[in-house]
Amino acid sequence: MSQRTESYLVGLVGDGVTPSLTPPMHEREGDVQGLRYLYRPIDLLELGLAGDSVGEVLRSARTLGFNGLNITHPCKQLVLQHLDEVSPDARRLGAVNTVVIRDGRFIGHNTDFSGFAAALASGLPGARLDRVVQLGAGGAGSAVAYALLSAGVTVLDLVDMDPERAAARAAELSGFFPDSTVTARTTAELPQLMPLADGLVHCTPVGMAAHPGVPLDLQLLEPRHWVADIVYRPIETELVRGARAKGCEVLDGGRMAVGQAADAFRIFTGLDADPERMRSHFLELVAAEEVAA
Amino acid sequence: MSQRTESYLVGLVGDGVTPSLTPPMHEREGDVQGLRYLYRPIDLLELGLAGDSVGEVLRSARTLGFNGLNITHPCKQLVLQHLDEVSPDARRLGAVNTVVIRDGRFIGHNTDFSGFAAALASGLPGARLDRVVQLGAGGAGSAVAYALLSAGVTVLDLVDMDPERAAARAAELSGFFPDSTVTARTTAELPQLMPLADGLVHCTPVGMAAHPGVPLDLQLLEPRHWVADIVYRPIETELVRGARAKGCEVLDGGRMAVGQAADAFRIFTGLDADPERMRSHFLELVAAEEVAA
Repeated sequence: MSQRTESYLVGLVGDGVTPSLTPPMHEREGDVQGLRYLYRPIDLLELGLAGDSVGEVLRSARTLGFNGLNITHPCKQLVLQHLDEVSPDARRLGAVNTVVIRDGRFIGHNTDFSGFAAALASGLPGARLDRVVQLGAGGAGSAVAYALLSAGVTVLDLVDMDPERAAARAAELSGFFPDSTVTARTTAELPQLMPLADGLVHCTPVGMAAHPGVPLDLQLLEPRHWVADIVYRPIETELVRGARAKGCEVLDGGRMAVGQAADAFRIFTGLDADPERMRSHFLELVAAEEVAA
Repeated sequence: MSQRTESYLVGLVGDGVTPSLTPPMHEREGDVQGLRYLYRPIDLLELGLAGDSVGEVLRSARTLGFNGLNITHPCKQLVLQHLDEVSPDARRLGAVNTVVIRDGRFIGHNTDFSGFAAALASGLPGARLDRVVQLGAGGAGSAVAYALLSAGVTVLDLVDMDPERAAARAAELSGFFPDSTVTARTTAELPQLMPLADGLVHCTPVGMAAHPGVPLDLQLLEPRHWVADIVYRPIETELVRGARAKGCEVLDGGRMAVGQAADAFRIFTGLDADPERMRSHFLELVAAEEVAA
């Protein structure tokens, strides 16, 4: 029969997004669910467009029948002024990575935050979350810290190379979570902080192919620590490998990548994505990339 | 394996295009060929946009990763000024219905013309084409007349309600095809013309659901005439039924609709579409519509 399949058209707007794995993750989940699903990277660098063109891109996407857009660097804040509605969590975070277009209106969400929360729950079930050290307080770090505090972390030690940024984030998060203690810290304090922590979360670029290395002295890890990395290229960062070797429970960066994609898929389509299936697709994609590299 | 499928994103720009059957025809052909193919109608009426916004729509489509656009009323002429390159036939016709976006450049084609030519060849093989009467000299009529003359028609009698339009088109076409005779005619001349003609081509809206009726006195048809209608909603127009009843060979409007779509598919993808398969999809779509109506 010639039944018309429900179809979804989605894009990812930002700098350098051409090789992102988010588009094929969405497309494959859509395929499995029997949807017509097409997800285009819209690479502002390749197009020679500045971040503040995101409003024009949004309006163009509405005209051309897109169901929504994912938004990444450098547009996650810039997009806010163009939205008709913003979820309360994204509003507090001051950052939107998912815009659904519904009846001509732009509605913003933040699935970096919700995706990390889902990853934490599924990848480290039962982990102690009383006290956590987080390295990196940039954009992704803010979403992760927000997710940690939402998940019940009561003491969060926030370390950043830029002490002012760490202090600003800590103050802001303390305002949103008055029952928790969020403190800006420095790398020098890690030897004192790690013995008190249940887990470590890593949100800097260290460990990516272009920034090899580890973000802290691995001697500071103990087997009782859990370790979460948000770097996923490679999926086995030096930190992940080092933590496993110590016997730590580990959450690799793929979990957050899949979590944010699964949540965005649900927001775009109204259908639940299967995160385990998406993760297995994701791992295939990463493996294919690593073989090709 | 997680091999990425080649994907194609296409749109149809014009007034009232939402119910067009061209998008599902392309999508189903893409499906059969194992492509990820998504084709969005971009309905200027619904969007509250004027025809001269087609340039902006083109530029937006380029930014958002479209492979191309089909263009229909009222944009087929308006689009010309925005193109980087135009095929010689489309340039002569002064009308473009297919724009492929390649390396950021807009390249225009006219598959109304080539689609009708293909339909004629496949649907009425061996038909005598020496002398033809054509009813209707509007936009679609121009493309059809151009196709008829390209296919070898030596005497074309062009009838239009608007004698000035008929005269202008006849003069223009005579310039392009100096070896043929193209003459503007009136409805009153049909009783003299039809006995001389091999076939009749109908390019007015008469016979569409909103314009019921026949475009000429069916008494003028003889069994030796072939009859081509470009109306395809319904697929069995009163003209098509009447001509069949007379024993005429008939080319229904679906052939041209499929022909233009098959050619556009090839232009967008570089892959041949199977016109017989597309026609069977098209007939299913029309049948489903007629059941629903």
